[in-house]
Amino acid sequence: MIKVGIVGGTGYTGVELLRLLAVHPDVEIAAITSRGESGTPVARMFPSLRKRVDVAFTDPAATDLGACDCVFFATPNGVAMGQAGPVLEAGAKVIDLSADFRLKDIATWERWYKMKHASPELVAEAVYGLPETNREGIRGARLVANPGCYATAVQLALLPLVETDFVDRDHLVADAKSGVSGAGRKAEVDLLFSEASDNFKAYAVGGHRHHPEIVQGLRQAGGKDVGLTFVPHLVPMIRGILATVYARVTRETDFQKLFETRYEGEAFVDVLPPGTQPETRWVRGSNHCRIAVHRPMGGDTLVVLAVEDNLVKGAAGQAVQNMNIAFGFPEGRGLDQVALLP
Amino acid sequence: MIKVGIVGGTGYTGVELLRLLAVHPDVEIAAITSRGESGTPVARMFPSLRKRVDVAFTDPAATDLGACDCVFFATPNGVAMGQAGPVLEAGAKVIDLSADFRLKDIATWERWYKMKHASPELVAEAVYGLPETNREGIRGARLVANPGCYATAVQLALLPLVETDFVDRDHLVADAKSGVSGAGRKAEVDLLFSEASDNFKAYAVGGHRHHPEIVQGLRQAGGKDVGLTFVPHLVPMIRGILATVYARVTRETDFQKLFETRYEGEAFVDVLPPGTQPETRWVRGSNHCRIAVHRPMGGDTLVVLAVEDNLVKGAAGQAVQNMNIAFGFPEGRGLDQVALLP
Amino acid sequence: MIKVGIVGGTGYTGVELLRLLAVHPDVEIAAITSRGESGTPVARMFPSLRKRVDVAFTDPAATDLGACDCVFFATPNGVAMGQAGPVLEAGAKVIDLSADFRLKDIATWERWYKMKHASPELVAEAVYGLPETNREGIRGARLVANPGCYATAVQLALLPLVETDFVDRDHLVADAKSGVSGAGRKAEVDLLFSEASDNFKAYAVGGHRHHPEIVQGLRQAGGKDVGLTFVPHLVPMIRGILATVYARVTRETDFQKLFETRYEGEAFVDVLPPGTQPETRWVRGSNHCRIAVHRPMGGDTLVVLAVEDNLVKGAAGQAVQNMNIAFGFPEGRGLDQVALLP
Amino acid sequence: MIKVGIVGGTGYTGVELLRLLAVHPDVEIAAITSRGESGTPVARMFPSLRKRVDVAFTDPAATDLGACDCVFFATPNGVAMGQAGPVLEAGAKVIDLSADFRLKDIATWERWYKMKHASPELVAEAVYGLPETNREGIRGARLVANPGCYATAVQLALLPLVETDFVDRDHLVADAKSGVSGAGRKAEVDLLFSEASDNFKAYAVGGHRHHPEIVQGLRQAGGKDVGLTFVPHLVPMIRGILATVYARVTRETDFQKLFETRYEGEAFVDVLPPGTQPETRWVRGSNHCRIAVHRPMGGDTLVVLAVEDNLVKGAAGQAVQNMNIAFGFPEGRGLDQVALLP
Repeated sequence: MIKVGIVGGTGYTGVELLRLLAVHPDVEIAAITSRGESGTPVARMFPSLRKRVDVAFTDPAATDLGACDCVFFATPNGVAMGQAGPVLEAGAKVIDLSADFRLKDIATWERWYKMKHASPELVAEAVYGLPETNREGIRGARLVANPGCYATAVQLALLPLVETDFVDRDHLVADAKSGVSGAGRKAEVDLLFSEASDNFKAYAVGGHRHHPEIVQGLRQAGGKDVGLTFVPHLVPMIRGILATVYARVTRETDFQKLFETRYEGEAFVDVLPPGTQPETRWVRGSNHCRIAVHRPMGGDTLVVLAVEDNLVKGAAGQAVQNMNIAFGFPEGRGLDQVALLP
Repeated sequence: MIKVGIVGGTGYTGVELLRLLAVHPDVEIAAITSRGESGTPVARMFPSLRKRVDVAFTDPAATDLGACDCVFFATPNGVAMGQAGPVLEAGAKVIDLSADFRLKDIATWERWYKMKHASPELVAEAVYGLPETNREGIRGARLVANPGCYATAVQLALLPLVETDFVDRDHLVADAKSGVSGAGRKAEVDLLFSEASDNFKAYAVGGHRHHPEIVQGLRQAGGKDVGLTFVPHLVPMIRGILATVYARVTRETDFQKLFETRYEGEAFVDVLPPGTQPETRWVRGSNHCRIAVHRPMGGDTLVVLAVEDNLVKGAAGQAVQNMNIAFGFPEGRGLDQVALLP
Repeated sequence: MIKVGIVGGTGYTGVELLRLLAVHPDVEIAAITSRGESGTPVARMFPSLRKRVDVAFTDPAATDLGACDCVFFATPNGVAMGQAGPVLEAGAKVIDLSADFRLKDIATWERWYKMKHASPELVAEAVYGLPETNREGIRGARLVANPGCYATAVQLALLPLVETDFVDRDHLVADAKSGVSGAGRKAEVDLLFSEASDNFKAYAVGGHRHHPEIVQGLRQAGGKDVGLTFVPHLVPMIRGILATVYARVTRETDFQKLFETRYEGEAFVDVLPPGTQPETRWVRGSNHCRIAVHRPMGGDTLVVLAVEDNLVKGAAGQAVQNMNIAFGFPEGRGLDQVALLP
Repeated sequence: MIKVGIVGGTGYTGVELLRLLAVHPDVEIAAITSRGESGTPVARMFPSLRKRVDVAFTDPAATDLGACDCVFFATPNGVAMGQAGPVLEAGAKVIDLSADFRLKDIATWERWYKMKHASPELVAEAVYGLPETNREGIRGARLVANPGCYATAVQLALLPLVETDFVDRDHLVADAKSGVSGAGRKAEVDLLFSEASDNFKAYAVGGHRHHPEIVQGLRQAGGKDVGLTFVPHLVPMIRGILATVYARVTRETDFQKLFETRYEGEAFVDVLPPGTQPETRWVRGSNHCRIAVHRPMGGDTLVVLAVEDNLVKGAAGQAVQNMNIAFGFPEGRGLDQVALLP
């Protein structure tokens, strides 16, 4: 049984962590902090937790996170880079769900996130928390940079292709679609029901922050640069990401088998049978990423479809998976939720 | 560890039973039947179950349901009344999620369900499976009639009022609203996304089948007749019921306390603090019914708000709760899912 | 051809006015003001208007609204009461879509809207713009108080009942359900897609601002006090209101005929055939209110169902209808849009 | 004033035609046929039309369509090819909203639509009704093959690129997303609200019927073959298509200007300012297609975004536009509806 703390638990990744950790048999939720909500029982803010989670938000300044074994940062970008240091020094492991430690190149990070990075040395130490590529590193890590939601889906869809040499890796296209919860619990007009419902649009077409993260991961996995066009879209649904990835075949192979072999033994990556067209609801609330490989009309373009729940495998679920790995628990502990369908 | 069977697992209550039973520690899913889908793995029809449920549909004729300890009927109305008998005789307990055994008065049942009842003697034996009123009966029951979704929410909202004498029980109003999954997985034009989305309507205003069921339950609980106007509505959401119940106060009491006292100790009925306005998503995927008591503008009309997930506390979750009671397991075993929010 | 101005055109009622006025043959949109968006073409903010509306927001201070024949206030509550005076003095008619002039009793208004009223004398002059009760008053009015969205639907559902003596007028219940656009274009967490979608709840159960407005209208129409319990709910759809109204019958009559007779000749009130269950999409984008009269199971409770589009008959459409009446145009001019279905 | 007839008016394109034609000043709806609904007033089936459209369905066998000036076929594929001939011979013009006359190559048509074509000679005569490429042909046509919804959006997004030589026309990618109404008013499980809501998926990845139609149109426009990967997706919204088109730049030009020049003077194609990210609701209910041209991160991949309402510019609206052209009315007559936003 370990003690965990959550910093910044009032957003969607925070409440999702609580949903998952509440039923994790090896975890005690020791602390959850919020500057604005100090003293409020979490179940008052999120009544879905009533009769399940019985802790209250505490003031960060008055909370000894160092007494925890594991601290999750579910904070806006720019917070963890300032606060993770002392927590690590006190002996806790840190899993950061924000973007603060994801990009190894500080200049790139600062350009995309428009602020100065507060702890480049921790960036160097941080392990990128995609278990399917970095499991061993996560095992020994003090500090895990939990991947972005798009970044998880797109990398899982592309890893088998960039680790081998069967497609044109200089001209990959990832047309990604996300539910609205990916934008967080922020009071912005664009995210209002009356704006986002019964509507569909692309956004950040000029460039999205997950682009450098995806490219860094693919480059590391494949050992060479990749060229990627990444266009995210906003779907009128709460949860879920579907990434539709296009790659031009340059050399033939059995792509279905390539994917099955790559992900054999991966508990949370599910390579679907040929011909399957995955739906986001197949993973609603579960930690799986389900992937299908297509070759439309037998042409030279490969189409890979990957679905995940952006708040689970794309955020809180993967964070718990990383915690399990880091603490030596079975990797799937506390993550056996079946997707909610319908 | 008991062996359970599911008859008719291709509808929404069927897949919901599988979602819940898949993580129930005392249950082995021994059989699931479907005439049309015999041989199909359930996870092919419902890929949300992939990597979690590994059984295939079997032909009912070739399936020995009597070898199960507990058989759930998740069939259309009119099936269980014909098939439950032999299963019971073989020694299994039966929990019927359809309406076949809910109404004690056969003539009433036949009028509302427009068919002849095949086994009135089993109706007499069946225990109505609302644990909050019939827990002791369920404990010893062979045959449990699992309540309807509206019937559960409306009864839980009204029980404290009909068991006492503080409101006009002759003129109760239940204005109920349900998500579309309540109508089942049926290919009907009215239930199409393009018809039901971005839309709202009342239906069955002239009379709904859950009316006699609610009235029977309230009459039994209160020991006298009740007068109820019940109008269901269709909400463009998948899961969830909100019942807004109106009752004229005839004698003063502390209604908040009346409800809290009535449901003290009930694990799955949550009386909310004064002033709370419950939302259906607070119970999405969980087995709770959450209830709030209001007195608008201090007038003489009491307003009770009750939310539940129609597929969980309104169907499959309550069925598992009944199974737990009937088999002597802790009542909440396998039902600790936290509601999915957002 | 008259010149119209719109004050505060950046909200939903503003853009809806533009949608309707853009195709009105007797209207020229002469001015639309917005402090924050001065200089911005309206079609940049609302690209739905591209190729249809070619005006830009202007600064209120620099705009001579008095040069208009008719000025619509689509502003938050509290603005029109301060600005309508000078516009009226300059000779324009004013139609206020906010609540500033709806309640005749100043003390009641100040209690519900939590501010001091700036021009009680204009309240006295203002005509409540429900054409179905006040058509003659509107014809001669300088200042029209356009009704609230709930207030329109609930009054139209109840008028035939409070103008006669067949039901218990002391214990009316209006269980109303509205799409999210009724809350306006405000960046609030509660209105986010991720909060409001796939969800249903009641709100303002303790008391809603439209309550005194409805009661005032019904009292005026019926010549006696009424007792009303009014509970609004939030539906996960963009537009539309359904009011389900309950009244206990105290004296028998042909209620269907009562409604048909009352609304004979009303272009925008549609009494549906017996047995009809109206859907909000039947009026999506149109100025109609469609009403059905039911008597569930032949009991003593009458159920009236009324649907409208909260932004059309519940706001901008009714405002245009009032303008047509006030200026002597045919009442339906510019309001022949057919509801968008599906 | 011309007399129009509609064959098969019970689907979504049928009711949409009625919505548009009801307010068209030069049109009288003379007949609307339905085998199953003969005798039913259309406003009983679609109450959105009450007080606006006052005709009843008639039996096709008893209806003299030849007495009409213009007959729309809003029928399933395979009907118009058998019935259009006699109507044309009687002197009426025919606008077919189904796929029967869209593909010039009969063998290709028969392969994709899985039936024998009944009137190849009419295929030869038919004019493909995309005004932006075939306006002159439509002007003189007796028989217009109204384009498919995806085919309209994708062609309009690609025409400026295939008519010139700045991109690799052998490897175009169109990732298209459609609202559910595109699938029609068919009682199929996949289209149920409980299946399609809060969900996202690709479908027909292996090949979609609009693929050969798009390729035929692009080939004709550009005078050379094109290679296209086309993947449609299902969005949980009622109306709207967004096509995201990817093309590799092979020679530099000002693409924004290329599009603006190509569509200069087109009333229903709206090339948006640089940087715009169009939303489907910007055209909800209107006949516009709005297009934006992007160059993500300055790379070598061009991204074109095109939105339309699949039932308007993608079906009934374009059909009315074609009727206007064919009969010499102003092209935009009856099509001045402003998009419904929100």
